[in-house]
Amino acid sequence: MTTTDSFTETFRDEMLGSGLLIAGPVDGLYGRSSVYERVAEGVEDFLTRLGADEVEDYVRFPPILPRTVFEQTGYLSSFPDLMGSVHSFVGDDRQHAEMVQAAESGEQWARSLDPTDVMLCSAACHSVYPRYVGVLPEGGHKLQVSSWCFRHEPSRALTRMQSFRMLEHVYVGAASEVADFRERWIKRTRDALVDLGLDIEMVTANDPFFGRGGRLLARSQRDEELKFEFVTPFDATTPPVAIASSNLHLDHFGETFGISTTSGEVAHSTCLGWGWDRIVLALFRHHGTDLRQWPAETSARLWP
Amino acid sequence: MTTTDSFTETFRDEMLGSGLLIAGPVDGLYGRSSVYERVAEGVEDFLTRLGADEVEDYVRFPPILPRTVFEQTGYLSSFPDLMGSVHSFVGDDRQHAEMVQAAESGEQWARSLDPTDVMLCSAACHSVYPRYVGVLPEGGHKLQVSSWCFRHEPSRALTRMQSFRMLEHVYVGAASEVADFRERWIKRTRDALVDLGLDIEMVTANDPFFGRGGRLLARSQRDEELKFEFVTPFDATTPPVAIASSNLHLDHFGETFGISTTSGEVAHSTCLGWGWDRIVLALFRHHGTDLRQWPAETSARLWP
Repeated sequence: MTTTDSFTETFRDEMLGSGLLIAGPVDGLYGRSSVYERVAEGVEDFLTRLGADEVEDYVRFPPILPRTVFEQTGYLSSFPDLMGSVHSFVGDDRQHAEMVQAAESGEQWARSLDPTDVMLCSAACHSVYPRYVGVLPEGGHKLQVSSWCFRHEPSRALTRMQSFRMLEHVYVGAASEVADFRERWIKRTRDALVDLGLDIEMVTANDPFFGRGGRLLARSQRDEELKFEFVTPFDATTPPVAIASSNLHLDHFGETFGISTTSGEVAHSTCLGWGWDRIVLALFRHHGTDLRQWPAETSARLWP
Repeated sequence: MTTTDSFTETFRDEMLGSGLLIAGPVDGLYGRSSVYERVAEGVEDFLTRLGADEVEDYVRFPPILPRTVFEQTGYLSSFPDLMGSVHSFVGDDRQHAEMVQAAESGEQWARSLDPTDVMLCSAACHSVYPRYVGVLPEGGHKLQVSSWCFRHEPSRALTRMQSFRMLEHVYVGAASEVADFRERWIKRTRDALVDLGLDIEMVTANDPFFGRGGRLLARSQRDEELKFEFVTPFDATTPPVAIASSNLHLDHFGETFGISTTSGEVAHSTCLGWGWDRIVLALFRHHGTDLRQWPAETSARLWP
């Protein structure tokens, strides 16, 4: 067991042993106890207050996304190994009997299923773009969104779940206004996380693009500074973990979904993505598993 | 358009037009506005207070379930057409290029994906049984659980979503105690829904078992009175809609998961399943889309 694994296992033992999280037979899926959820709700309310002066509304989306929307996001091309495609059974009694028979014999039964019209949601902001197709209102549109997201990457590390919640502040609008929003929110994000008592560093980052072609995309994303991550240490022996990220999409979504500004330009977009569950985990890691021992300033900000 | 469709469309127009729900290109997936969510949170807190004297804890589970757990529930045999199996890409650069090419040509690209270790959650209580494998504590165990659930049944009716939230009060224990719990909670459930200002009728019901064999299972479930539904009218011209159900599993889950009581008997289980989103919809239908116009008694129970 390496040093990294050692921390991973210690932190798992701590969170599972205290009953804050409940593990099952697959890594990366955990039930959340009411104490864990008290913190999760505190974080959600804190982030909602943070953006209340700017956003139009806070919309929660289902963990499921239309397949056509997924296809438009470019995720299939960039992160195929992380996606979750939803398949179901469309057959008759005889085919059903065969499938059940296969399952009972311990055979692979799922490959014969048919793809449905839906996918698992990979990023909360993907759900919002369809509503903007066409011309944006004057000044663009700012929305807070959240949803359960899925990434197919089983791991023992609690900070790398397969099913987790993401909260985002999204702005779709004119290029220069989107750039301003991003600058303003980078500062706001760092301050907010420091206010929760976390050690934060901002670093240039890239998404985990797939394959050989992905290396080029990752380099270009870094060179253009399209992604910053706000990282916090979980342990002295392991790399710090990103708990929020600022992403500038330029005209990627505006172009694909057909969104334009009132002046007729292709819309730009940016999102501030909060790793909601990761922030909760960081708080437990930094302040301990007993909420009564947390710093008064942190508690006051979560539960004012 | 039939009479049924007429109400379905009117209610859709009302909920979407007021911005309470946000539709996309696939029926059955809706974003929830902060006003809708204020009611959803009120319902959740109301149900949590309702069971607080009995349950051990309230655990929120992810919308995803281990495939092995799904296989043990019997869902594959009973409701194959409703399931959501999660598939992903496990291949190399060449296969990836072929898949992206197929997608760009508008071809079916998803059939070549591989089944993962996970499924979409069909019922919130499915996530809890693995933790009870072995011998239960004395007196069994009562838990409140919730999760986003998936049923592959696209529909224009808001009361039949593909992705929706379910909250359940689950009891796993000895046969006679489980039967007592069930009796007690049937009364508690009816009273609680009436307290929210809803017209409630309790009816014997059956699950939508698949195929020819399913008709027998449905009849037997009715004959044994294993399922009761609490239905409320949405419209004079359409059948009332189930917004909660009491389900007695007998030893089904105890047997499959290997759960026994301290006296060595196979555990029985029962759950009170609350159609969380359906209750929210019923409240908007009965009391209107403007929360300020709701009956004071209802508001006081949701937001005391």
